[in-house]
Amino acid sequence: MDIYDHVIEKAKKAKKAAAKMPGLPSAVKDKALLSMAEVIINQKAKIQDANQKDLEAAKKSGLSNAMIDRLTLTDVRIGSMANGLREVASFPDPVGRLTDMVQRPSGIRVGKMTVPIGLIGFIYESRPNVTADAAGLCLKAGNAILLRGGKEALNSNCVLAELLNQAAVSAGVPDGAISLIEKTDHDGVKHMIEAAGIIDLLIPRGGKGLIKAVVDGAKIPVIKHFEGNCHVYIDKYADIENAISITVNAKTQRPGVCNAAETLLVHNDIAGDFLPRAAGELQAKGVELRGCDRSREIVTDMKVATDDDWYTEYLDLILAVRIVDSLEQAVEHINTYSSSHTEAIVTSDITSAEYFVTNVDSSSVIVNASTRFSDGGEYGLGAEIGISTDKLHARGPMGVADLTTYKWVVYGNGTIRQ
Amino acid sequence: MDIYDHVIEKAKKAKKAAAKMPGLPSAVKDKALLSMAEVIINQKAKIQDANQKDLEAAKKSGLSNAMIDRLTLTDVRIGSMANGLREVASFPDPVGRLTDMVQRPSGIRVGKMTVPIGLIGFIYESRPNVTADAAGLCLKAGNAILLRGGKEALNSNCVLAELLNQAAVSAGVPDGAISLIEKTDHDGVKHMIEAAGIIDLLIPRGGKGLIKAVVDGAKIPVIKHFEGNCHVYIDKYADIENAISITVNAKTQRPGVCNAAETLLVHNDIAGDFLPRAAGELQAKGVELRGCDRSREIVTDMKVATDDDWYTEYLDLILAVRIVDSLEQAVEHINTYSSSHTEAIVTSDITSAEYFVTNVDSSSVIVNASTRFSDGGEYGLGAEIGISTDKLHARGPMGVADLTTYKWVVYGNGTIRQ
Repeated sequence: MDIYDHVIEKAKKAKKAAAKMPGLPSAVKDKALLSMAEVIINQKAKIQDANQKDLEAAKKSGLSNAMIDRLTLTDVRIGSMANGLREVASFPDPVGRLTDMVQRPSGIRVGKMTVPIGLIGFIYESRPNVTADAAGLCLKAGNAILLRGGKEALNSNCVLAELLNQAAVSAGVPDGAISLIEKTDHDGVKHMIEAAGIIDLLIPRGGKGLIKAVVDGAKIPVIKHFEGNCHVYIDKYADIENAISITVNAKTQRPGVCNAAETLLVHNDIAGDFLPRAAGELQAKGVELRGCDRSREIVTDMKVATDDDWYTEYLDLILAVRIVDSLEQAVEHINTYSSSHTEAIVTSDITSAEYFVTNVDSSSVIVNASTRFSDGGEYGLGAEIGISTDKLHARGPMGVADLTTYKWVVYGNGTIRQ
Repeated sequence: MDIYDHVIEKAKKAKKAAAKMPGLPSAVKDKALLSMAEVIINQKAKIQDANQKDLEAAKKSGLSNAMIDRLTLTDVRIGSMANGLREVASFPDPVGRLTDMVQRPSGIRVGKMTVPIGLIGFIYESRPNVTADAAGLCLKAGNAILLRGGKEALNSNCVLAELLNQAAVSAGVPDGAISLIEKTDHDGVKHMIEAAGIIDLLIPRGGKGLIKAVVDGAKIPVIKHFEGNCHVYIDKYADIENAISITVNAKTQRPGVCNAAETLLVHNDIAGDFLPRAAGELQAKGVELRGCDRSREIVTDMKVATDDDWYTEYLDLILAVRIVDSLEQAVEHINTYSSSHTEAIVTSDITSAEYFVTNVDSSSVIVNASTRFSDGGEYGLGAEIGISTDKLHARGPMGVADLTTYKWVVYGNGTIRQ
């Protein structure tokens, strides 16, 4: 079967499952999630065998150690996949909530009811544990999911998706609700993103290349989960101790993740006090600093930052540094170079904080705390399917409620319009 | 200047205005809306002169009388444009609402704040009064708007957009917040829908051709306002009197609009009682009926309905009729042929109503009332920019609150992640 037929057959079967899922009782969905957790534990050996094949191929093809680490399904990671599914089972059902019900002068009663979105196409890279997380969240919200993982994780993903779907079916979920594209031909993505009328929403999670391919070609709605080029701005009214600890935390607490800081903006009036101390602490933690000309006059052992640095998500112990003349210039820098993920201001001045919150156009805007808080768990959403860098429907950490939409529901009593 | 440069220059200027609008005080926006209403009344002669040019060109090019009627800016329509703007001024400001604020164990406080979307590209056909409605709603929500109207209304739209933008500027709104593409080259739409990074959201409102062109080519998010192929389903447990009055109202109260019914589905068990009486009343009002084979055995003077009829939005006194064997078959017919706008069930049975509400996948699902209620005014939203037939962000009647998005706002006190 060629790749087009494979994608369309999988998508149509998943769509058929989706059509039966809006009325799925909460108890069935939760039972399915618990069965999925159980099968992951019971079939650990089978999953790890498949993962071993992926790891061997990865070593042969010369994948970096960091990538190989992300690909590995250790006992601990398998345990946490299962725990993640159990946690999702414990959430309240996000479907079927009737809100804003009002009585209108015409005699109708009208409100909004949360409903599943339908079939979600999820395109992601590398880590196979995301397969279980995404499948669990989509199922809880009454959606079918069509997964398309990276080629490095194909063997692991095939076994996982098959086991998860079977477990869900055994609990009463329609067959195909958890589906995976089992071929990694590049055209598979193309056929998915053009499947208008079948797939209701695409969620791509990955790097520039993947996101661009999806956005350029998609004929269906997309919510991008793009990179985090996050900023910390030290206002002239900042408390220096807070400024240092937030900067160091945002950069170094876990540098390889999307909510780590990548550029530090410093108001000129405070740079002389702040920068030498901050640079010392950052450099002591192994951070390479790349500065603008003015910041290099204060901290002379910084490398030179170019325009490219302002655009870069390093995901590493590197930090770009720029001195600005005003809060307004800091906000303009952010709105020009940021990927609209997460930005923080450190200030003791309420007017500065208010201006920053109002005018920075990113999914999370943080006052006097680390960018590292931008996360579904930290915000209280429970598990997240990712962090949306788009503006519509869901922005920032995207939890299970964001995987629903709504319909208007109207009740009359033979009511007609005059 | 060629069309590409024209579109990009207009879009960039509008985007620059949008960047200054998230912090625009409510009082400035409302003053602008009132000034816009005033200028429309004061400059009525100028607007009608431009409209006259459009009308003359329309007559020359042989536009239908219905189209010419829609194009005409009578005194009444100009008055209602101004009233619409005044009404929008009276709404509460949808921007800056901070909700769901919670204190987290880490010490941060986090909530969601409503914010403008940014620059909205609005692509619409024919009626020039939509220009003022759309501009007013977008401004209220703190968005800039880039309008691209139909070529038939170009002279009217140019004068209107110019006057509205000037009035807004005089009240303190950034110049370019209300912008119009002043050339109607077909490529103008193409350049708009590819303006990624400049336009944040496209709202196309129109027929199949326009919608398809936008969806196929867009590189930015789209919320479609597509046609309404609406259904009325008469359940076997329907009250016959309600069934007749709802059917007649849904089809004939205003047949030319998107929430009028286009197909009538009837349960076989009630068809013998219901159809002859309903057909009589509909035919008495001049409705042409096109039926399936079984319905034509009951009402013999119906034309034959083909598969095409199930897909058609007539916008006219024509109604397709089909007998179904079950509620499930009715829902399947709707989910297959509908444009996902609005569907109604007439039933006295709560289980039938519940099944219909849960399983029909449309933006409005109505129990025992006419499809004609699917409307922003009837639902209590005030003015609407249109009726979304998409599933994401906004579904069904789309009011001023749907023209905002949100950002996450986090407050700490030097808080770092452990």
